[in-house]
Amino acid sequence: MKKAVVLLSGGLDSATCLAIARDQGYQCHTIAFDYGQRTRSELDAAARVSEALGAASHRVIELGMGNIGGSALTDHNIEVPEDGGEGIPVTYVPARNTVFLSLALGLAEVTGAEAIYIGVNAVDYSGYPDCRPAFIEAFQTLANLATKAGVEGNTIRIETPLMHLSKAQIIQQGEGLGLDYGLTVSCYQADAEGRACGRCDSCRLRKQGFADALVKDPTNYQ
Amino acid sequence: MKKAVVLLSGGLDSATCLAIARDQGYQCHTIAFDYGQRTRSELDAAARVSEALGAASHRVIELGMGNIGGSALTDHNIEVPEDGGEGIPVTYVPARNTVFLSLALGLAEVTGAEAIYIGVNAVDYSGYPDCRPAFIEAFQTLANLATKAGVEGNTIRIETPLMHLSKAQIIQQGEGLGLDYGLTVSCYQADAEGRACGRCDSCRLRKQGFADALVKDPTNYQ
Repeated sequence: MKKAVVLLSGGLDSATCLAIARDQGYQCHTIAFDYGQRTRSELDAAARVSEALGAASHRVIELGMGNIGGSALTDHNIEVPEDGGEGIPVTYVPARNTVFLSLALGLAEVTGAEAIYIGVNAVDYSGYPDCRPAFIEAFQTLANLATKAGVEGNTIRIETPLMHLSKAQIIQQGEGLGLDYGLTVSCYQADAEGRACGRCDSCRLRKQGFADALVKDPTNYQ
Repeated sequence: MKKAVVLLSGGLDSATCLAIARDQGYQCHTIAFDYGQRTRSELDAAARVSEALGAASHRVIELGMGNIGGSALTDHNIEVPEDGGEGIPVTYVPARNTVFLSLALGLAEVTGAEAIYIGVNAVDYSGYPDCRPAFIEAFQTLANLATKAGVEGNTIRIETPLMHLSKAQIIQQGEGLGLDYGLTVSCYQADAEGRACGRCDSCRLRKQGFADALVKDPTNYQ
Protein backbone atom coordinates (compact mmCIF):
# COMPACT_ATOMS: atom_id res chain seq x y z
CA MET A 1 0.00 0.00 0.00
CA LYS A 2 1.40 3.40 -0.95
CA LYS A 3 2.32 5.59 2.01
CA ALA A 4 2.05 9.28 2.79
CA VAL A 5 3.18 11.50 5.64
CA VAL A 6 0.47 14.00 6.62
CA LEU A 7 1.24 17.10 8.66
CA LEU A 8 -1.47 17.58 11.29
CA SER A 9 -1.89 20.75 13.30
CA GLY A 10 -5.18 19.84 14.91
CA GLY A 11 -6.94 22.45 12.78
CA LEU A 12 -9.51 22.27 10.03
CA ASP A 13 -7.18 22.45 7.02
CA SER A 14 -4.77 19.69 7.96
CA ALA A 15 -7.63 17.38 9.00
CA THR A 16 -9.13 17.88 5.54
CA CYS A 17 -5.74 17.02 4.03
CA LEU A 18 -5.68 13.76 5.93
CA ALA A 19 -9.20 12.91 4.75
CA ILE A 20 -8.11 13.62 1.16
CA ALA A 21 -4.88 11.57 1.40
CA ARG A 22 -6.86 8.65 2.82
CA ASP A 23 -9.46 9.00 0.08
CA GLN A 24 -6.65 8.91 -2.49
CA GLY A 25 -5.63 5.47 -1.23
CA TYR A 26 -2.69 6.28 1.00
CA GLN A 27 -1.71 4.57 4.20
CA CYS A 28 -1.18 7.72 6.30
CA HIS A 29 1.51 8.45 8.88
CA THR A 30 0.61 11.63 10.73
CA ILE A 31 3.05 14.02 12.34
CA ALA A 32 2.35 16.88 14.74
CA PHE A 33 4.73 19.33 16.38
CA ASP A 34 5.01 20.41 19.96
CA TYR A 35 6.78 23.71 19.30
CA GLY A 36 5.79 25.70 22.33
CA GLN A 37 2.52 26.85 20.81
CA ARG A 38 0.29 28.87 23.06
CA THR A 39 -2.49 26.33 23.02
CA ARG A 40 -1.84 22.68 23.85
CA SER A 41 -5.33 21.61 22.88
CA GLU A 42 -4.20 21.68 19.22
CA LEU A 43 -2.05 18.63 19.95
CA ASP A 44 -4.97 16.80 21.55
CA ALA A 45 -7.03 17.61 18.47
CA ALA A 46 -4.30 16.31 16.13
CA ALA A 47 -4.18 12.96 17.97
CA ARG A 48 -7.99 12.75 17.92
CA VAL A 49 -8.19 13.46 14.20
CA SER A 50 -5.39 10.97 13.41
CA GLU A 51 -7.17 8.22 15.30
CA ALA A 52 -10.64 9.04 13.97
CA LEU A 53 -9.36 8.86 10.40
CA GLY A 54 -7.50 5.59 10.92
CA ALA A 55 -3.91 6.76 10.36
CA ALA A 56 -1.31 3.97 10.54
CA SER A 57 0.85 5.95 13.01
CA HIS A 58 0.91 9.30 14.79
CA ARG A 59 4.05 11.05 16.03
CA VAL A 60 4.46 14.21 18.07
CA ILE A 61 7.87 15.79 17.49
CA GLU A 62 9.20 18.03 20.26
CA LEU A 63 10.66 21.19 18.85
CA GLY A 64 12.20 23.88 21.06
CA MET A 65 11.11 26.81 18.88
CA GLY A 66 10.20 28.79 21.98
CA ASN A 67 13.98 29.32 22.31
CA ILE A 68 13.86 31.17 19.02
CA GLY A 69 10.89 33.40 19.80
CA GLY A 70 9.52 36.17 17.61
CA SER A 71 5.90 35.05 17.31
CA ALA A 72 2.68 35.61 19.20
CA LEU A 73 2.04 31.87 18.89
CA THR A 74 5.13 30.85 20.87
CA ASP A 75 5.99 33.97 22.87
CA HIS A 76 3.43 34.70 25.57
CA ASN A 77 4.62 38.30 25.81
CA ILE A 78 3.25 39.07 22.33
CA GLU A 79 -0.51 39.51 22.17
CA VAL A 80 -2.65 37.55 19.68
CA PRO A 81 -4.43 40.11 17.49
CA GLU A 82 -8.21 40.08 17.09
CA ASP A 83 -8.61 42.66 14.36
CA GLY A 84 -6.95 41.38 11.19
CA GLY A 85 -4.44 44.03 10.17
CA GLU A 86 -2.03 44.55 7.28
CA GLY A 87 1.08 42.63 6.17
CA ILE A 88 2.71 39.63 7.79
CA PRO A 89 1.01 39.16 11.17
CA VAL A 90 2.65 38.66 14.57
CA THR A 91 1.22 35.13 14.62
CA TYR A 92 3.77 34.24 11.92
CA VAL A 93 6.27 31.73 13.39
CA PRO A 94 9.64 32.29 11.69
CA ALA A 95 10.37 29.59 9.10
CA ARG A 96 7.69 27.32 10.59
CA ASN A 97 6.56 25.51 7.47
CA THR A 98 10.17 25.06 6.36
CA VAL A 99 10.95 23.36 9.67
CA PHE A 100 7.78 21.25 9.63
CA LEU A 101 8.26 20.11 6.03
CA SER A 102 11.91 19.25 6.74
CA LEU A 103 10.95 16.96 9.59
CA ALA A 104 8.15 15.44 7.52
CA LEU A 105 10.72 14.84 4.80
CA GLY A 106 12.93 12.95 7.24
CA LEU A 107 9.93 10.84 8.30
CA ALA A 108 8.98 10.21 4.67
CA GLU A 109 12.49 8.89 4.01
CA VAL A 110 12.39 6.59 7.02
CA THR A 111 8.88 5.23 6.38
CA GLY A 112 9.37 4.98 2.61
CA ALA A 113 6.50 7.38 1.92
CA GLU A 114 6.15 8.75 -1.58
CA ALA A 115 4.19 11.87 -0.66
CA ILE A 116 3.89 14.52 2.04
CA TYR A 117 0.51 16.23 2.48
CA ILE A 118 0.44 19.75 3.89
CA GLY A 119 -2.63 21.94 4.24
CA VAL A 120 -1.18 25.23 3.06
CA ASN A 121 -3.48 27.59 1.30
CA ALA A 122 -2.81 30.58 -0.90
CA VAL A 123 -6.34 32.00 -0.67
CA ASP A 124 -6.95 32.49 3.05
CA TYR A 125 -3.23 32.43 3.78
CA SER A 126 -3.20 35.25 6.33
CA GLY A 127 -0.08 36.82 4.80
CA TYR A 128 2.36 34.05 5.76
CA PRO A 129 5.18 33.89 3.18
CA ASP A 130 5.65 30.14 3.59
CA CYS A 131 2.15 29.24 2.36
CA ARG A 132 2.64 30.37 -1.25
CA PRO A 133 2.94 28.06 -4.28
CA ALA A 134 6.44 29.40 -5.02
CA PHE A 135 7.56 28.36 -1.55
CA ILE A 136 6.22 24.83 -2.03
CA GLU A 137 7.89 24.55 -5.44
CA ALA A 138 11.21 25.61 -3.92
CA PHE A 139 10.79 23.05 -1.15
CA GLN A 140 10.10 20.33 -3.73
CA THR A 141 13.37 21.19 -5.49
CA LEU A 142 15.18 21.09 -2.16
CA ALA A 143 13.59 17.75 -1.20
CA ASN A 144 14.81 16.16 -4.43
CA LEU A 145 18.37 17.21 -3.61
CA ALA A 146 18.34 16.75 0.17
CA THR A 147 17.37 13.13 0.52
CA LYS A 148 18.69 9.65 0.00
CA ALA A 149 15.42 8.90 -1.81
CA GLY A 150 15.91 11.89 -4.12
CA VAL A 151 19.51 10.89 -4.88
CA GLU A 152 18.25 7.42 -5.79
CA GLY A 153 15.63 8.92 -8.12
CA ASN A 154 12.59 8.38 -5.89
CA THR A 155 11.09 11.82 -5.55
CA ILE A 156 9.04 12.50 -2.43
CA ARG A 157 6.16 14.65 -3.70
CA ILE A 158 4.87 17.60 -1.69
CA GLU A 159 1.07 17.53 -2.03
CA THR A 160 -0.96 20.66 -1.31
CA PRO A 161 -4.55 19.73 -2.15
CA LEU A 162 -5.98 22.85 -0.46
CA MET A 163 -3.69 25.39 -2.13
CA HIS A 164 -6.30 27.06 -4.32
CA LEU A 165 -9.48 26.38 -2.33
CA SER A 166 -11.42 28.92 -0.30
CA LYS A 167 -12.14 28.06 3.32
CA ALA A 168 -15.73 27.27 2.31
CA GLN A 169 -14.56 24.91 -0.45
CA ILE A 170 -12.21 23.16 1.98
CA ILE A 171 -15.08 22.63 4.40
CA GLN A 172 -17.35 21.33 1.66
CA GLN A 173 -14.67 18.87 0.55
CA GLY A 174 -14.14 17.57 4.10
CA GLU A 175 -17.89 17.31 4.64
CA GLY A 176 -18.12 15.26 1.46
CA LEU A 177 -15.51 12.87 2.87
CA GLY A 178 -17.45 12.52 6.14
CA LEU A 179 -14.97 14.48 8.27
CA ASP A 180 -16.28 15.63 11.66
CA TYR A 181 -14.92 19.17 12.09
CA GLY A 182 -16.02 19.12 15.70
CA LEU A 183 -12.80 17.16 16.34
CA THR A 184 -10.61 20.03 15.14
CA VAL A 185 -9.32 23.16 16.91
CA SER A 186 -8.29 26.21 14.85
CA CYS A 187 -8.26 28.93 17.52
CA TYR A 188 -4.91 30.63 18.31
CA GLN A 189 -5.90 30.87 21.96
CA ALA A 190 -8.19 27.91 22.62
CA ASP A 191 -8.65 26.95 26.27
CA ALA A 192 -7.47 23.66 27.79
CA GLU A 193 -10.68 21.94 26.68
CA GLY A 194 -10.13 23.10 23.10
CA ARG A 195 -12.91 25.71 23.18
CA ALA A 196 -12.35 28.52 20.69
CA CYS A 197 -12.27 32.26 21.46
CA GLY A 198 -14.30 33.12 18.36
CA ARG A 199 -12.42 36.40 17.91
CA CYS A 200 -8.82 35.76 16.70
CA ASP A 201 -7.93 35.81 12.97
CA SER A 202 -8.06 32.05 12.77
CA CYS A 203 -11.50 31.82 14.42
CA ARG A 204 -12.88 34.55 12.19
CA LEU A 205 -11.71 32.82 8.99
CA ARG A 206 -13.10 29.51 10.17
CA LYS A 207 -16.46 30.93 11.23
CA GLN A 208 -16.86 32.72 7.92
CA GLY A 209 -15.92 29.50 6.10
CA PHE A 210 -18.77 27.55 7.66
CA ALA A 211 -21.16 30.40 6.94
CA ASP A 212 -20.07 30.61 3.28
CA ALA A 213 -20.17 26.81 2.89
CA LEU A 214 -23.70 26.73 4.29
CA VAL A 215 -22.50 24.05 6.72
CA LYS A 216 -23.48 24.12 10.39
CA ASP A 217 -20.45 25.25 12.46
CA PRO A 218 -19.65 22.47 14.96
CA THR A 219 -16.99 24.53 16.74
CA ASN A 220 -17.06 24.49 20.51
CA TYR A 221 -16.86 28.18 21.51
CA GLN A 222 -15.94 29.50 24.97
CA MET B 1 27.38 45.43 14.04
CA LYS B 2 26.33 42.94 11.39
CA LYS B 3 25.00 39.66 12.74
CA ALA B 4 25.29 36.02 11.74
CA VAL B 5 23.76 32.78 12.97
CA VAL B 6 26.35 30.00 13.16
CA LEU B 7 25.37 26.33 13.33
CA LEU B 8 27.57 24.56 15.89
CA SER B 9 27.75 20.80 16.21
CA GLY B 10 30.67 20.73 18.65
CA GLY B 11 32.89 19.32 15.90
CA LEU B 12 35.92 20.64 14.07
CA ASP B 13 34.19 22.00 10.96
CA SER B 14 31.51 24.10 12.61
CA ALA B 15 34.03 25.52 15.12
CA THR B 16 36.15 26.64 12.17
CA CYS B 17 33.07 28.25 10.64
CA LEU B 18 32.50 30.24 13.80
CA ALA B 19 36.13 31.39 13.83
CA ILE B 20 35.76 32.48 10.19
CA ALA B 21 32.45 34.32 10.77
CA ARG B 22 33.99 36.15 13.73
CA ASP B 23 37.07 37.00 11.67
CA GLN B 24 34.77 38.42 8.96
CA GLY B 25 33.40 40.91 11.48
CA TYR B 26 30.12 39.29 12.48
CA GLN B 27 28.49 39.34 15.86
CA CYS B 28 27.74 35.61 16.10
CA HIS B 29 24.66 33.87 17.50
CA THR B 30 25.36 30.17 17.79
CA ILE B 31 22.77 27.42 17.62
CA ALA B 32 23.16 23.73 18.49
CA PHE B 33 20.63 20.91 18.33
CA ASP B 34 19.76 18.30 20.88
CA TYR B 35 18.30 15.79 18.44
CA GLY B 36 18.79 12.54 20.30
CA GLN B 37 22.34 12.09 19.08
CA ARG B 38 24.21 9.15 20.52
CA THR B 39 26.84 11.30 22.16
CA ARG B 40 25.89 14.17 24.46
CA SER B 41 29.45 15.42 24.75
CA GLU B 42 29.01 17.11 21.35
CA LEU B 43 26.61 19.55 22.99
CA ASP B 44 29.09 20.31 25.77
CA ALA B 45 31.72 20.93 23.11
CA ALA B 46 29.41 23.29 21.19
CA ALA B 47 28.80 25.37 24.31
CA ARG B 48 32.54 25.43 25.08
CA VAL B 49 33.44 26.55 21.56
CA SER B 50 30.73 29.22 21.52
CA GLU B 51 32.00 30.70 24.76
CA ALA B 52 35.69 30.44 23.86
CA LEU B 53 35.08 32.32 20.61
CA GLY B 54 33.00 35.04 22.25
CA ALA B 55 29.64 34.42 20.56
CA ALA B 56 26.91 36.93 21.54
CA SER B 57 24.44 34.13 22.37
CA HIS B 58 24.21 30.34 22.34
CA ARG B 59 20.99 28.36 22.00
CA VAL B 60 20.35 24.64 22.23
CA ILE B 61 17.18 23.66 20.36
CA GLU B 62 15.47 20.45 21.46
CA LEU B 63 14.45 18.38 18.49
CA GLY B 64 12.67 15.04 18.89
CA MET B 65 14.24 13.44 15.82
CA GLY B 66 14.68 10.18 17.75
CA ASN B 67 10.93 9.74 17.12
CA ILE B 68 11.73 9.64 13.43
CA GLY B 69 14.61 7.15 13.59
CA GLY B 70 16.47 5.69 10.66
CA SER B 71 20.03 6.68 11.59
CA ALA B 72 22.87 5.12 13.57
CA LEU B 73 23.38 8.56 15.16
CA THR B 74 19.93 8.69 16.76
CA ASP B 75 18.86 5.02 16.87
CA HIS B 76 20.89 3.01 19.36
CA ASN B 77 19.85 -0.23 17.65
CA ILE B 78 21.87 0.64 14.53
CA GLU B 79 25.61 0.17 14.90
CA VAL B 80 28.10 2.95 14.05
CA PRO B 81 30.38 1.64 11.27
CA GLU B 82 34.16 1.68 11.67
CA ASP B 83 35.17 0.66 8.17
CA GLY B 84 34.06 3.36 5.74
CA GLY B 85 31.86 1.60 3.19
CA GLU B 86 30.08 2.61 0.00
CA GLY B 87 27.15 4.94 -0.70
CA ILE B 88 25.11 6.90 1.81
CA PRO B 89 26.15 5.68 5.27
CA VAL B 90 23.89 4.60 8.14
CA THR B 91 25.11 7.64 10.10
CA TYR B 92 23.06 9.81 7.71
CA VAL B 93 20.24 11.44 9.69
CA PRO B 94 17.26 11.91 7.34
CA ALA B 95 16.91 15.52 6.24
CA ARG B 96 19.16 16.70 9.08
CA ASN B 97 20.75 19.71 7.41
CA THR B 98 17.39 20.79 6.01
CA VAL B 99 15.94 20.77 9.51
CA PHE B 100 18.97 22.51 11.05
CA LEU B 101 19.10 25.21 8.37
CA SER B 102 15.35 25.81 8.72
CA LEU B 103 15.66 26.46 12.43
CA ALA B 104 18.73 28.64 11.85
CA LEU B 105 16.66 30.56 9.32
CA GLY B 106 13.98 31.18 11.93
CA LEU B 107 16.61 32.43 14.37
CA ALA B 108 18.19 34.63 11.68
CA GLU B 109 14.81 36.26 11.10
CA VAL B 110 14.24 36.88 14.79
CA THR B 111 17.75 38.21 15.51
CA GLY B 112 17.95 40.24 12.28
CA ALA B 113 20.99 38.30 11.07
CA GLU B 114 22.03 38.72 7.46
CA ALA B 115 23.94 35.44 7.17
CA ILE B 116 23.86 31.82 8.32
CA TYR B 117 27.17 29.96 8.53
CA ILE B 118 27.15 26.19 8.12
CA GLY B 119 30.22 23.97 7.96
CA VAL B 120 29.14 21.66 5.15
CA ASN B 121 31.83 20.29 2.93
CA ALA B 122 31.71 18.72 -0.51
CA VAL B 123 35.20 17.20 -0.31
CA ASP B 124 35.16 15.03 2.82
CA TYR B 125 31.37 14.93 2.79
CA SER B 126 30.99 11.24 3.70
CA GLY B 127 28.30 10.69 1.07
CA TYR B 128 25.59 12.79 2.74
CA PRO B 129 23.29 14.24 0.05
CA ASP B 130 22.57 17.38 2.08
CA CYS B 131 26.18 18.61 2.06
CA ARG B 132 26.42 19.31 -1.67
CA PRO B 133 26.57 22.78 -3.29
CA ALA B 134 23.33 22.09 -5.19
CA PHE B 135 21.55 21.44 -1.89
CA ILE B 136 22.80 24.72 -0.44
CA GLU B 137 21.75 26.64 -3.56
CA ALA B 138 18.26 25.13 -3.34
CA PHE B 139 18.06 26.09 0.32
CA GLN B 140 19.08 29.66 -0.52
CA THR B 141 16.23 29.87 -3.04
CA LEU B 142 13.84 28.51 -0.44
CA ALA B 143 15.09 30.93 2.23
CA ASN B 144 14.41 33.89 -0.05
CA LEU B 145 10.81 32.74 -0.47
CA ALA B 146 10.13 31.39 3.03
CA THR B 147 10.85 34.38 5.17
CA LYS B 148 9.47 37.76 6.10
CA ALA B 149 13.00 39.12 5.49
CA GLY B 150 13.07 37.58 2.01
CA VAL B 151 9.63 38.99 1.15
CA GLU B 152 10.87 42.41 2.21
CA GLY B 153 13.95 42.05 -0.02
CA ASN B 154 16.49 41.35 2.73
CA THR B 155 18.06 38.08 1.69
CA ILE B 156 19.53 35.94 4.45
CA ARG B 157 22.69 34.50 2.87
CA ILE B 158 23.72 30.89 3.48
CA GLU B 159 27.51 30.95 3.91
CA THR B 160 29.53 27.75 3.45
CA PRO B 161 33.16 28.80 3.81
CA LEU B 162 34.40 25.20 4.07
CA MET B 163 32.57 23.84 1.02
CA HIS B 164 35.61 23.26 -1.17
CA LEU B 165 38.33 22.79 1.44
CA SER B 166 39.97 19.50 2.39
CA LYS B 167 39.98 18.55 6.06
CA ALA B 168 43.65 19.55 6.21
CA GLN B 169 42.91 22.98 4.70
CA ILE B 170 40.07 23.49 7.20
CA ILE B 171 42.42 22.70 10.07
CA GLN B 172 45.09 25.03 8.72
CA GLN B 173 42.55 27.84 8.42
CA GLY B 174 41.32 27.34 11.99
CA GLU B 175 44.89 27.17 13.28
CA GLY B 176 45.62 30.44 11.52
CA LEU B 177 42.69 32.02 13.37
CA GLY B 178 43.97 30.71 16.72
CA LEU B 179 41.22 28.10 17.19
CA ASP B 180 41.96 25.44 19.82
CA TYR B 181 40.68 22.18 18.29
CA GLY B 182 41.12 20.49 21.66
CA LEU B 183 37.74 22.09 22.53
CA THR B 184 35.94 20.19 19.75
CA VAL B 185 34.51 16.65 19.58
CA SER B 186 34.00 14.97 16.18
CA CYS B 187 33.61 11.31 17.22
CA TYR B 188 30.26 9.60 16.50
CA GLN B 189 30.60 7.64 19.74
CA ALA B 190 32.59 9.84 22.10
CA ASP B 191 32.32 8.96 25.79
CA ALA B 192 30.74 11.20 28.43
CA GLU B 193 34.02 13.11 28.86
CA GLY B 194 34.20 13.78 25.12
CA ARG B 195 37.02 11.30 24.47
CA ALA B 196 37.04 10.01 20.91
CA CYS B 197 36.99 6.35 19.80
CA GLY B 198 39.58 6.96 17.09
CA ARG B 199 37.96 4.35 14.82
CA CYS B 200 34.64 5.64 13.42
CA ASP B 201 34.44 7.37 10.00
CA SER B 202 34.43 10.80 11.62
CA CYS B 203 37.50 10.06 13.78
CA ARG B 204 39.39 8.63 10.83
CA LEU B 205 38.75 11.70 8.65
CA ARG B 206 39.74 14.03 11.48
CA LYS B 207 42.93 12.13 12.35
CA GLN B 208 44.01 12.07 8.71
CA GLY B 209 43.25 15.79 8.46
CA PHE B 210 45.67 16.66 11.26
CA ALA B 211 48.30 14.37 9.75
CA ASP B 212 47.89 15.94 6.29
CA ALA B 213 47.88 19.45 7.73
CA LEU B 214 51.10 18.74 9.64
CA VAL B 215 49.34 20.03 12.77
CA LYS B 216 49.63 18.21 16.09
CA ASP B 217 46.34 16.36 16.79
CA PRO B 218 44.98 17.73 20.10
CA THR B 219 42.12 15.17 20.21
CA ASN B 220 41.52 13.44 23.50
CA TYR B 221 41.30 9.74 22.59
CA GLN B 222 39.83 7.01 24.82
